[in-house]
Amino acid sequence: MQRYFVSPADMTDLSVTITGDDANHIAKVMRMEVGDRVICSDNQGRVALCEIKQIERDSIYTSIIEPIEESKESPIRVTIAQGIPKGDKLEAIVQKGTELGAQAFLPFSSSRCIVKWDEKKGQKKKQRLEKIAKEAAEQSHRSRIPYVLPPVSFKSLLKKAADFDYKIVAYEEDAKIGETQRLAKLLNEMAPGVSVLCAIGPEGGLSQQEVDELIEAGFISCGLGPRILRTETASSYILSAISYHFELMR
Amino acid sequence: MQRYFVSPADMTDLSVTITGDDANHIAKVMRMEVGDRVICSDNQGRVALCEIKQIERDSIYTSIIEPIEESKESPIRVTIAQGIPKGDKLEAIVQKGTELGAQAFLPFSSSRCIVKWDEKKGQKKKQRLEKIAKEAAEQSHRSRIPYVLPPVSFKSLLKKAADFDYKIVAYEEDAKIGETQRLAKLLNEMAPGVSVLCAIGPEGGLSQQEVDELIEAGFISCGLGPRILRTETASSYILSAISYHFELMR
Repeated sequence: MQRYFVSPADMTDLSVTITGDDANHIAKVMRMEVGDRVICSDNQGRVALCEIKQIERDSIYTSIIEPIEESKESPIRVTIAQGIPKGDKLEAIVQKGTELGAQAFLPFSSSRCIVKWDEKKGQKKKQRLEKIAKEAAEQSHRSRIPYVLPPVSFKSLLKKAADFDYKIVAYEEDAKIGETQRLAKLLNEMAPGVSVLCAIGPEGGLSQQEVDELIEAGFISCGLGPRILRTETASSYILSAISYHFELMR
Repeated sequence: MQRYFVSPADMTDLSVTITGDDANHIAKVMRMEVGDRVICSDNQGRVALCEIKQIERDSIYTSIIEPIEESKESPIRVTIAQGIPKGDKLEAIVQKGTELGAQAFLPFSSSRCIVKWDEKKGQKKKQRLEKIAKEAAEQSHRSRIPYVLPPVSFKSLLKKAADFDYKIVAYEEDAKIGETQRLAKLLNEMAPGVSVLCAIGPEGGLSQQEVDELIEAGFISCGLGPRILRTETASSYILSAISYHFELMR
């Protein structure tokens, strides 16, 4: 069944109003009619099965059939801090990362980033990524849309680390020397509900100095298996491993 | 360091000759010179550190400095059987799957596949996918290039299942009803060296009848966490979970 996120103000105890692009999607793309059903989420934990009562140009009026209790969200609150990559790789990272359960994405600049975002470009990219996150959250049946945070400098990333229970940096030199213990050890220590910040370098990787600074700020440097992963594959690996460990193994 | 796969015939006890596109890559793209070093693999388990001795138009002559003993290959031999998806998604699946350790890729047709490959198109696609697998294997420092198998019908997929120790089908209806036990249970049973066939449907999924036929052929239907994954994300999830289980947790 199709899922849509609505603002909490549009979800009362009995009814949900769907507006904007989603209203258009229901009427024009899905060609739904009065009596059809959709699932609506207020992005704050409330999810409901709804029946369409009225279709207008910019608004779809529905009544709530029943609330849906579900747990689609990862018990580990993972923020992917991603060194800004080239092209549209960040869009793929946000799309796949949303499916795989990330709670937030934090783009950051580092010495080997080739792409630079000024404030205007950063703002535009953030809006585009938010749209991708919303659509991926709907498609993957999540109860919440992950946050896309404004891009930060490497120095700001170091400062933000203090807000998280655990900090991980994926470091390809660890994969090369065969470091295989730390990620599993960390996941074994984590209790449901903790927050984790995962830093992943851009295509050229993080410099040794940057990794040293991250470690000083409390990050644990982890290998992600013996093969060298592309920057856009590293976040999928970490999120899949966390899902497997906490959602399937337990 | 750059890595190249060469044919076993081009790797003697003392020297390696690199030809074709790779020779061009070394000379023109990387602009390497006599005395520079590369790593060569014969795709049959032999890997060596080599020094460039002579650069000619179509051939690079190197001498072996020392053999490299390494274990970059997954202890579980995973074949990803992928329902043929639209566009260039299969290219992304082969690229990411190679990084994540797949041993082979087997494209198959099923009732909800939108794209049909005739023999000529299938052959051309296979060659393109083999090139992607080779490049991804070099970039991710693998010792072997995964196989890209010729596309098969759904009926042939059912027959092939007999060749594998374990068979898994990723089924989104399992995710919807919250099936979370089977994948971890299966991985706990597996011993290093076993072969696993993982069937993943195309964008529209597998039909209930196809899933029933797969189960009859010995496949175990598994949920991949509580969220609904796109077809191209499912293989990354399974390969990451297998890598985490066998390469990091142990």
